[in-house]
Amino acid sequence: MKLAEIAERIDAELDGDGEVPISGICGLVEAGQGDLSFLANAKYSSLLEQTRASAVIVEKSWSGVSACPVLRVASPDKAMAQAAMLLGPATGPELAEGVHPSAVISPEAVVDASVRVGPFCIIEAGARIGAGTMMLGGCYVGRDAEIGSGCLMRVNAVVRERVKVGDRVVLHEGSVVGGDGFGNYMENGAWHKIPHIGTVEIGDDAEIGANTTVDRARFGATVIGKGVRIDNLVMIGHNVKVGDHSAMAAQVGISGSAEVGRYVMLGGQAGVAGHLEIGDAAVIGAQSGVHKNVPPKEMVSGSPAQPLRKAYEAHSNMNKMSEWKERVKELEKKLALLEKRLDGGE
Amino acid sequence: MKLAEIAERIDAELDGDGEVPISGICGLVEAGQGDLSFLANAKYSSLLEQTRASAVIVEKSWSGVSACPVLRVASPDKAMAQAAMLLGPATGPELAEGVHPSAVISPEAVVDASVRVGPFCIIEAGARIGAGTMMLGGCYVGRDAEIGSGCLMRVNAVVRERVKVGDRVVLHEGSVVGGDGFGNYMENGAWHKIPHIGTVEIGDDAEIGANTTVDRARFGATVIGKGVRIDNLVMIGHNVKVGDHSAMAAQVGISGSAEVGRYVMLGGQAGVAGHLEIGDAAVIGAQSGVHKNVPPKEMVSGSPAQPLRKAYEAHSNMNKMSEWKERVKELEKKLALLEKRLDGGE
Amino acid sequence: MKLAEIAERIDAELDGDGEVPISGICGLVEAGQGDLSFLANAKYSSLLEQTRASAVIVEKSWSGVSACPVLRVASPDKAMAQAAMLLGPATGPELAEGVHPSAVISPEAVVDASVRVGPFCIIEAGARIGAGTMMLGGCYVGRDAEIGSGCLMRVNAVVRERVKVGDRVVLHEGSVVGGDGFGNYMENGAWHKIPHIGTVEIGDDAEIGANTTVDRARFGATVIGKGVRIDNLVMIGHNVKVGDHSAMAAQVGISGSAEVGRYVMLGGQAGVAGHLEIGDAAVIGAQSGVHKNVPPKEMVSGSPAQPLRKAYEAHSNMNKMSEWKERVKELEKKLALLEKRLDGGE
Repeated sequence: MKLAEIAERIDAELDGDGEVPISGICGLVEAGQGDLSFLANAKYSSLLEQTRASAVIVEKSWSGVSACPVLRVASPDKAMAQAAMLLGPATGPELAEGVHPSAVISPEAVVDASVRVGPFCIIEAGARIGAGTMMLGGCYVGRDAEIGSGCLMRVNAVVRERVKVGDRVVLHEGSVVGGDGFGNYMENGAWHKIPHIGTVEIGDDAEIGANTTVDRARFGATVIGKGVRIDNLVMIGHNVKVGDHSAMAAQVGISGSAEVGRYVMLGGQAGVAGHLEIGDAAVIGAQSGVHKNVPPKEMVSGSPAQPLRKAYEAHSNMNKMSEWKERVKELEKKLALLEKRLDGGE
Repeated sequence: MKLAEIAERIDAELDGDGEVPISGICGLVEAGQGDLSFLANAKYSSLLEQTRASAVIVEKSWSGVSACPVLRVASPDKAMAQAAMLLGPATGPELAEGVHPSAVISPEAVVDASVRVGPFCIIEAGARIGAGTMMLGGCYVGRDAEIGSGCLMRVNAVVRERVKVGDRVVLHEGSVVGGDGFGNYMENGAWHKIPHIGTVEIGDDAEIGANTTVDRARFGATVIGKGVRIDNLVMIGHNVKVGDHSAMAAQVGISGSAEVGRYVMLGGQAGVAGHLEIGDAAVIGAQSGVHKNVPPKEMVSGSPAQPLRKAYEAHSNMNKMSEWKERVKELEKKLALLEKRLDGGE
Repeated sequence: MKLAEIAERIDAELDGDGEVPISGICGLVEAGQGDLSFLANAKYSSLLEQTRASAVIVEKSWSGVSACPVLRVASPDKAMAQAAMLLGPATGPELAEGVHPSAVISPEAVVDASVRVGPFCIIEAGARIGAGTMMLGGCYVGRDAEIGSGCLMRVNAVVRERVKVGDRVVLHEGSVVGGDGFGNYMENGAWHKIPHIGTVEIGDDAEIGANTTVDRARFGATVIGKGVRIDNLVMIGHNVKVGDHSAMAAQVGISGSAEVGRYVMLGGQAGVAGHLEIGDAAVIGAQSGVHKNVPPKEMVSGSPAQPLRKAYEAHSNMNKMSEWKERVKELEKKLALLEKRLDGGE
């Protein structure tokens, strides 16, 4: 494919020779002749001066020096995603049409004829699976669960009874949606289980990461909004609500009944205590421990979490305490001296 | 069902019209006519003034205003659990009797005739499974492992060789009990694996959360006590002992050989270093990093963890440091002035 | 087996009666007659005075009092590992030769004749599995993936398409290698998935813990070096490089494109932000939050992480702030007094 053609397909402004042939796509460091690469992080800008790539995708306003033609675009991430689709290996799962003979599907399940079901999958009675959905190996769909159309359940993904999953949802490997909420009451010195008769609802276009768990509600539903992106090994507690288009990085934990707004971002390993409200478009730093409500658009950090400016200030102060201790000691000395001078009759 | 009948069944004191018909159970916000709801958290008390629920379960001594009859009980959590059983959908797994033909069971395994085994389960030689235990799809029981009676292994739960599981234990989806402990020694610049020939013992009535891992001991056994409740994505290291009736929230990590007492509570994402002792009924705050022994009943917080009062004090001090810095600067100025005055002969 | 024989087999210096018969191996506390035990942690040294073990492995220079013969060795961990192999139960997985009839193997996969494949495994087209590798139940190997020789995939381990795994690698239960990286771009108010056309490469002799996830690269490869040891529930983000012989404890998270050097050690629940470099032989404390590069051999701790000395100092200062506040208050009082004396004409 010629560079000019790619430029047209990804809606880029070509800066250089459009006749250059492009046959692959890869990172800046690894790129060689024939490769299209991209500058996603300004930090690596100087690499373009000596890149062996045949072309590089950059942000529209980028102004550095490049050893090869550049393609200027509004969103390098988007352009790169489009280019990867044009030039890379197929990324979709390749699952044969139809239902693998080993799959165990209840005759009382309603599975669209276009659904592809891999080996060792289980679909229980009353479950409904929409058109074009694919279930790779070892997936489980519980009784009366509903999976929309165009979904992808990767290997060993589990959807428990009565859970509702929207359209075009991706459930990654080993994810568990609708597991029992963690709730017990103590009686006579022992824990007794609180039944969780609620369910989980996952909105259209959401993604649930590998080995992530989303617990079912005590009553009602744990809700994951439309377009939400959840990374691996995340824990979503019972009755949590996550608003549309929020994103959370790996190993985040959201405790029971917390309400996370829309367009919220949570960094890796952050934790949110139960029954809190996180406002729309709030940003929760990695490893934060959120223990009170966060207003919309607020950025918080630290454990316990506080507004970013305060968290930085506290941390900076903490690191300068040794200096302040010295200044206080100095004051004590000088003051003692002054007292002596005064007492001495000066 | 009439409200008066429910009151009797859940041992509640009825405050209002017992003739009200009840057909469902759900949360306060979602509740409508015919629904029984509950007040689990005093924070939501004002919702009762305008609830559309037909009745609400409250704590015995609750004294707010309610728009509907209330049921006063000693433990709202317990009453609600009982009511959910009366009014909610069936919560138990529905697994057909007998062994699914796809299951692979060694002829040398001893499986009680009443055990239900779902599709794609594997039971190795020498394993013993007690009466009434259920294994949903994709479960694995290793060689010479013992599972008691009345247990529930959910989808893809794994029990490795020689592990002993008590009665009425629940192993949630994707949990791994008896995986290799993490132990290596360095020789000639490379790690060499330390074999873990010990095992895991899980007491009666314990629950192990989804995708949680409990590693086997180097020698002897990693021990999870009776009635222990472990949430999702928790890591229990090799040779750890967890005392009876302790509970730990999601994403907790307990390092090798730590001993956690009885009735200990650990908040989400807390970590405990190796070889420590956590006393009975201690409470470890969420995200705490415990690096030394914790006495019985002590409450600790922070990373590194300290007694709650000290942790709060430290945090509060940290946030007021800017004020203290100003006060020190002011002192320095005043002192300099005094020195000048004295030096100037005053 | 006589103690003298064991001493010879594990290359130990015998200190005591070599005729003592040894039949088992276990921990110091549980050990009884006939058991060999070991002192791995000096903290437990006094237990040897009263141990009921028939012999104990100690460090060469150990100088305590023992109630039984001791075996002095250069590395107790190594000696204990060797002794466990001599005296303990078989630790290797016992999988029948050949391919279980339930396994689903593409005719286009290349599986060495010596490979053992357990029930319910799936091997896709183009996959290659080397000599002597074992796949226990429920494993998945994606299209065109390559697994070396002598590997062990434990129950439900997943290797996605095009991933390359070296020789003698162990993938523990439920681990997922090659899942989609977490990358999205925002357009018109919604997240769009960035395809991850890269892969994962795992070096010889590495181990990946239970339910751990290693994401595939956007382009190129996420790389896990030779001999690396990764514990359970760890998250390795897309495009991360982990150098040879590094080790990370449970629940660690490494964000995208971070480069971890060789012989690096990471404590449990530590997190590393994206695009950072961690130098060779650096040591990252448990629960640390690393947000900037760490030089080789540096030890860091805390969140945000800082060099160990600074982290300790900051923490110690923080805990003494109440004392310093009192000293500042005292200074303020004394200064006010001095001012008064001066103003009063003294």
